[in-house]
Amino acid sequence: MSVSSRSINLAVIPGDGIGQEVVAQGLKVLSAVLPQDVKLETREFDFGARRYHATGETLTDADVTELKQHDAILLGAIGDPSVPSGVLERGFLLKLRFLFDHYVNLRPSRLLPGVATPLAGQPEIDFIVVREGTEGPYTGNGGSIRTGTPHEVATEVSVNTAFGVERVVRDAFARAQARPRKKLTLVHKNNVLAYAGHLWTNVFNAVAAEFPDVTTDYLHVDAATIFLVTDPARFDVIVTDNLFGDIITDLAAAVSGGIGVAASGNINPSGEFPSMFEPVHGSAPDIAGQGKADPSATVLSVALLLRHLGYEPEAARIESAVSADLAARGDSVRTTDEIGDALAARVAG
Amino acid sequence: MSVSSRSINLAVIPGDGIGQEVVAQGLKVLSAVLPQDVKLETREFDFGARRYHATGETLTDADVTELKQHDAILLGAIGDPSVPSGVLERGFLLKLRFLFDHYVNLRPSRLLPGVATPLAGQPEIDFIVVREGTEGPYTGNGGSIRTGTPHEVATEVSVNTAFGVERVVRDAFARAQARPRKKLTLVHKNNVLAYAGHLWTNVFNAVAAEFPDVTTDYLHVDAATIFLVTDPARFDVIVTDNLFGDIITDLAAAVSGGIGVAASGNINPSGEFPSMFEPVHGSAPDIAGQGKADPSATVLSVALLLRHLGYEPEAARIESAVSADLAARGDSVRTTDEIGDALAARVAG
Ligand SMILES: CC(C)[C@H](C(=O)O)[C@@H](O)C(=O)O
Ligand SMILES: CC(C)[C@H](C(=O)O)[C@@H](O)C(=O)O
Repeated sequence: MSVSSRSINLAVIPGDGIGQEVVAQGLKVLSAVLPQDVKLETREFDFGARRYHATGETLTDADVTELKQHDAILLGAIGDPSVPSGVLERGFLLKLRFLFDHYVNLRPSRLLPGVATPLAGQPEIDFIVVREGTEGPYTGNGGSIRTGTPHEVATEVSVNTAFGVERVVRDAFARAQARPRKKLTLVHKNNVLAYAGHLWTNVFNAVAAEFPDVTTDYLHVDAATIFLVTDPARFDVIVTDNLFGDIITDLAAAVSGGIGVAASGNINPSGEFPSMFEPVHGSAPDIAGQGKADPSATVLSVALLLRHLGYEPEAARIESAVSADLAARGDSVRTTDEIGDALAARVAG
Repeated sequence: MSVSSRSINLAVIPGDGIGQEVVAQGLKVLSAVLPQDVKLETREFDFGARRYHATGETLTDADVTELKQHDAILLGAIGDPSVPSGVLERGFLLKLRFLFDHYVNLRPSRLLPGVATPLAGQPEIDFIVVREGTEGPYTGNGGSIRTGTPHEVATEVSVNTAFGVERVVRDAFARAQARPRKKLTLVHKNNVLAYAGHLWTNVFNAVAAEFPDVTTDYLHVDAATIFLVTDPARFDVIVTDNLFGDIITDLAAAVSGGIGVAASGNINPSGEFPSMFEPVHGSAPDIAGQGKADPSATVLSVALLLRHLGYEPEAARIESAVSADLAARGDSVRTTDEIGDALAARVAG
């Protein structure tokens, strides 16, 4: 995405549940942080449960064409118990990741000062997970026969290509190289998932040769979950497949302050399609509309969005603001709106 | 397995690395706990890296025939860096689970008093995971084309059958019903892995109708990892597929005292084939032969073995001994052998 024009044309998808509330704060902070000369245009889309119930649609071809015309997408959360499990996930969230080739699913984990963690001893946590976003067991390849009978057989096919693995591994190496520790860990299960594991391991080792200054290692996914709770400081950058990445990033979020502060980017690095930024948390229908949701994860997702569009100083300002706000937070109970106001004041100040 | 004869015919597989040392302690405690009238016969098998290097074999048909003639199998650990990743795992460990139809992979997690956990606040942890052991992504179904080229495509197929899912789900319900809290959680990812997820969810709900006194719930695997660190007390019994079970049981072991005390059983409930009991930890070649390994996980696996064979009082005595030993352990550094001696003395006393 070029920023020469100094304008941001943003698609906004509040979605379901707390999505509405947290996205409002994200936009508030975004407006506050942008320099006056940057023109921000937003267009809101009504995807999610209400649209689905009203029209039966999750994401139409016309929607995709319109979304494509934006520089980036800010998403709150999609999902509601009134919709059968999987319909919105596969019909909207995953569909968009695939259509817009969001092959880098970027999820940073940083335990900020003053933030509670379930781990004892307040360990140092500062790593990023680069999760593959367009392949693996997420492709919807699979099926069932004799469905609903005692003889049912159901399959799921994990599809992995050298093309798909190499581009995300290369992206992860570049990110590792740009960080002070320059360390990249491949997480897979290559002793059991031998075909996919072989491909991932071979590609990883081949690309490693081009990044001699990056230290590398390998962990089975089961072992990785152990280290995430016993020694999270060992991680700098992790690259992994779509399903393993889904699992370990929720765990990573839990140990580094909870999903209330976990941001993510669904990135198409080539810029051919708009990238989409969203909190890791879901729509939390149980607390929706009560002003209880923490908008920090959405605000941090706005920082990732700005960094992706080339607004590095503004991204850093948001991250400092969230960090300062968390450190000052103590036991005070604030509404979603109050936290948003506080963050907007900090980035503007 | 009938115990009317009051004899145990045990196959012993020390395996690689620390396997040798920990199994020796397991047998020591087993001999000490058994009443005089129970005849214990053991036969040692040399599977693992040395056999593989010497003969190229991991597990032959003749081996399988001989193993079959035992009431149960006690395994230390299999695996060594000198053998390419996956060869012993798939050629021995998984092969045996499949051949002996070990469809219940039982992994209890209990945080015992005095045992360190990476979690703050010493939460209550006492749950068991019933991991499916013969299906899912572990079947070795998959392949690759254009292997080693930039156009490689590698697939892994998760195979799930109504037959396979129902028997393990039924086993888990029965275990939940026998526990005071009577709660069973299904862990899957049915919003993404829709075919397998649909099968698991449907079978789970159908079997639930037969166990009206068991409370049930469902968690996506990513959410389950969050609760394992933020609220492990919420779990009583978990049932899940082979791969999710692999991942969450390592995490469960980590939060409930570490893999030094995590036991497991690869169980064939029908008794058609011998069940196999093993610590969750691996061969730890870095500390092998130094008397540093904690044999507690193996000793607790012996307890699971005894319970499976109908020796409930002896199983309970071992568990109490390990519990008392851990509580009394403090900061003392003891050798593998010393811990084994202490446990043998406790169960005998
Ligand atoms: C909602 C679901 C489809 C999604 C995923 O599995 O990728 C979510 O868990 C996530 O991590 O973004
Ligand atoms: C060694 C490996 C094949 C095995 C598995 O993945 O099942 C191990 O991790 C386990 O959990 O017993």
